[in-house]
Amino acid sequence: MTTPRAVLFDVFGTLVDWRGSVIAGLSAFGASRGIAADWAEVADGWRRAYRPAMDRVRRGAIPWTILDDLHRDALVELARRHGFAPLDDDECDHLVKLWHRLSPWSDVVAGLARIKRIAIIGPLSNGHLALQVALAKRNGFPWDVTFGADLFRHYKPDADVYLGACDFLGLAPHEVMLAAAHNDDLAAAESCGLRTGFISRPAEHGTATGDRARPTGDWTLVARSVEDLAARLGA
Amino acid sequence: MTTPRAVLFDVFGTLVDWRGSVIAGLSAFGASRGIAADWAEVADGWRRAYRPAMDRVRRGAIPWTILDDLHRDALVELARRHGFAPLDDDECDHLVKLWHRLSPWSDVVAGLARIKRIAIIGPLSNGHLALQVALAKRNGFPWDVTFGADLFRHYKPDADVYLGACDFLGLAPHEVMLAAAHNDDLAAAESCGLRTGFISRPAEHGTATGDRARPTGDWTLVARSVEDLAARLGA
Repeated sequence: MTTPRAVLFDVFGTLVDWRGSVIAGLSAFGASRGIAADWAEVADGWRRAYRPAMDRVRRGAIPWTILDDLHRDALVELARRHGFAPLDDDECDHLVKLWHRLSPWSDVVAGLARIKRIAIIGPLSNGHLALQVALAKRNGFPWDVTFGADLFRHYKPDADVYLGACDFLGLAPHEVMLAAAHNDDLAAAESCGLRTGFISRPAEHGTATGDRARPTGDWTLVARSVEDLAARLGA
Repeated sequence: MTTPRAVLFDVFGTLVDWRGSVIAGLSAFGASRGIAADWAEVADGWRRAYRPAMDRVRRGAIPWTILDDLHRDALVELARRHGFAPLDDDECDHLVKLWHRLSPWSDVVAGLARIKRIAIIGPLSNGHLALQVALAKRNGFPWDVTFGADLFRHYKPDADVYLGACDFLGLAPHEVMLAAAHNDDLAAAESCGLRTGFISRPAEHGTATGDRARPTGDWTLVARSVEDLAARLGA
């Protein structure tokens, strides 16, 4: 395989442990406010609300809306259901911004630094640009390019995202690899002509990830971590 | 002054010595092809063609066109005028891509690293994203965010660029500073509510910069270099 000119990364689950980070943030919030709830269930419910909310944007049922605002709408409903409503504006802001302060898996920063030596690296996430900048700044992701869903005003798996990123980079799809822990994301990228790198993240959903951590497609590369992907790319 | 949350930088002239780099690249091309021409005059003519070409895009006379393509059109005309026509496609590509391989002023990389400690840093240039990525990769610019004119489909000094960047960052204009060597760029940013940092680059146009290296507005900060700007920002 020739080295891709650019390797773009899914972020939630692939690079950052959204679940552990959001549970920790919710738990700290609960402790500070004297609220008891099943914060793991809240975190999982918040993430489950993500795909249908994006799908409403994708099919045009609602206009373009960034992830912060989709997260906020879902949070109001979760707070009611899990007994921690009402939340004032500052509390909502604080909790929505938990998604800007997610911690990476331990292999990510070193792996990205290696791949950066041989290719352009950047995020290709459903998070918006401000969220990507916050995560990179917090965690030291050494991006060469910063994409956010709001640059395309489309959410993955819309082709506009994968092809739009290639176009901005001035690269053909086959010169670009998407690296992700999710088979559906990789399938969409592959159908646009990108190369694909599966990164297994068995802890993404706590103990519940199960089969989702296994590759189901004929991906260009399959890796256990970003460092392993770097090695397989010869970086 | 409170520290800006983000400091965005004009690139051509402010961070990179486009003139010295383009003259060097043209001279090497001429030597390799046995062509004699006044390459400094070609470089200056190429740069002079830049504003009217962008203005045709800005007023809608031609559709959105990235800088590479504006550079290519101008190059064909310059080659005819200066006696190095015709150029084949590979030669055109090579010369247009000289603008992706510009060298920085000596203070830039160290200065950016300092400012990055206290603020989000990124380019806000009329170059497109692929060009910014190439310059950053070649020169080690440690950007937190990468803007290109093609994200906005507008050229500076259109307000869409300055306000669009603030919007993507989720910041109010007064939280963002534009740093530039050009008074007209800073004036446009100021009129959008951004803070302004003038960086004097007396060598931008060789010996011909003259008064253009002096601040003509009441800019928030005036500096002699990016390192000096870092010091004035307390970084």
